[in-house]
Amino acid sequence: MSEERSAEYQVQRAGKLVSDRLAVEEPMQITVDGCPIAVVMRTPGHDEDLVRGFLLTEGVLRSLSLVSRIDLEQKQNHALVFLKDDAEVDYEKQQRNLYSASSCGICGKASIESIRQELPRLESGFAVRKEVLLSLPDKMRETQETFEKTGGLHAAALFTQDGELVVLREDVGRHNAIDKVIGWAAAEEIDFSHLILQVSGRVSFEVMQKSHAVGIPVISAISAPTSLAVDFAQESGQTLIGFLRPPSYNVYSGEVV
Amino acid sequence: MSEERSAEYQVQRAGKLVSDRLAVEEPMQITVDGCPIAVVMRTPGHDEDLVRGFLLTEGVLRSLSLVSRIDLEQKQNHALVFLKDDAEVDYEKQQRNLYSASSCGICGKASIESIRQELPRLESGFAVRKEVLLSLPDKMRETQETFEKTGGLHAAALFTQDGELVVLREDVGRHNAIDKVIGWAAAEEIDFSHLILQVSGRVSFEVMQKSHAVGIPVISAISAPTSLAVDFAQESGQTLIGFLRPPSYNVYSGEVV
Repeated sequence: MSEERSAEYQVQRAGKLVSDRLAVEEPMQITVDGCPIAVVMRTPGHDEDLVRGFLLTEGVLRSLSLVSRIDLEQKQNHALVFLKDDAEVDYEKQQRNLYSASSCGICGKASIESIRQELPRLESGFAVRKEVLLSLPDKMRETQETFEKTGGLHAAALFTQDGELVVLREDVGRHNAIDKVIGWAAAEEIDFSHLILQVSGRVSFEVMQKSHAVGIPVISAISAPTSLAVDFAQESGQTLIGFLRPPSYNVYSGEVV
Repeated sequence: MSEERSAEYQVQRAGKLVSDRLAVEEPMQITVDGCPIAVVMRTPGHDEDLVRGFLLTEGVLRSLSLVSRIDLEQKQNHALVFLKDDAEVDYEKQQRNLYSASSCGICGKASIESIRQELPRLESGFAVRKEVLLSLPDKMRETQETFEKTGGLHAAALFTQDGELVVLREDVGRHNAIDKVIGWAAAEEIDFSHLILQVSGRVSFEVMQKSHAVGIPVISAISAPTSLAVDFAQESGQTLIGFLRPPSYNVYSGEVV
């Protein structure tokens, strides 16, 4: 399995053949105890974190403690997840609920009513400070500098309440980048209740849903939220910041102190 | 059902409450002859085109002639599709194959092997002219001017081989915008074999897959393609242009004459 996040391609530009680096997109099938539950189009790298994050944010597992091991070596582009003997998963329910995920289109939930179900309010009592918020885009960019530049990757990062970078990941799929940072932090047993999720792009309903699933109280984005993302945040009690372009930002839900 | 593409929200900016327009994101359930096949997170408007395009590009239907009617009025945020009596659809196969769609993440195909299956080469013999290509971004922008500005919408447009705009649509979901233009053109019985699909953002595997499903020979994007999109185009014989920022552009597959 290739772990390269970008690949070199020959491209014609102004009549000349030049080489160009493109973001790698490859499918990965996630199988839990032999049951195939999803195929994710992702940028290779940090695949184990992606699988962990996906299982948590899509509600397949409540806790990573149920996972016995994740085997990425057995078969190319396959993640084989094995649960502990006493773990119980309702696969049929999972198959129904899983296909909820896509800011760009499709979620195959059996019914539309299931979309907004189970939305307990997050009551972490954590309000992000203005100076912390304003420092995030620069910190994110500095970290991204070390990544390859292809122009085709979304970034997601977790920061502490004091604005310290916890983890940053890039992926062709915006949701994958989020799953990768959440999966990494969950494996490190980091408490989500005082973290900030910063994303490079826009915030859709599903970005909110994923962050809510693990209890992240503050979501901040460089670009716009959708209407449904704002509705969700107001209902869930999450803080939602958009158009974070220092010195300006918009608070769509919650407060900045 | 709201047909507004943007909605007004109260937002705090620099300590003041101001109003802000956000792109509307709402779920829509697509049901075919009583069988729910997908929930799409979309911007309301042109829903009938979205449904038509979705059914074609996801391979649910080979032709719109199988559709008897699409009822959007019966139930809010539901599209009820009724097929003609003699139409045969393998729903089980559809349920398996449908969840293929997401540039940002998830496709729930039963197996990874199914992703690249059935990829006949497109042999339209149509090569786009350089001057036509270079004219597309301006034409797209001019048309978008008439749309509401929320900073949160993806655009897709079909152009003729002479650079004439056929149709343009915007949506929070990049795939929805593509399905909307394709659905509209298919209903108008427009021949896809000499059209150019221009998109505002990036090109993933799935953008190629959707355009291939209806036989669009040329795909052009303002931003980067992924590695898999380029691999797909080279295999399918489609022309793929990226980073179209006049006077410059990259040809990743096929040729510009």
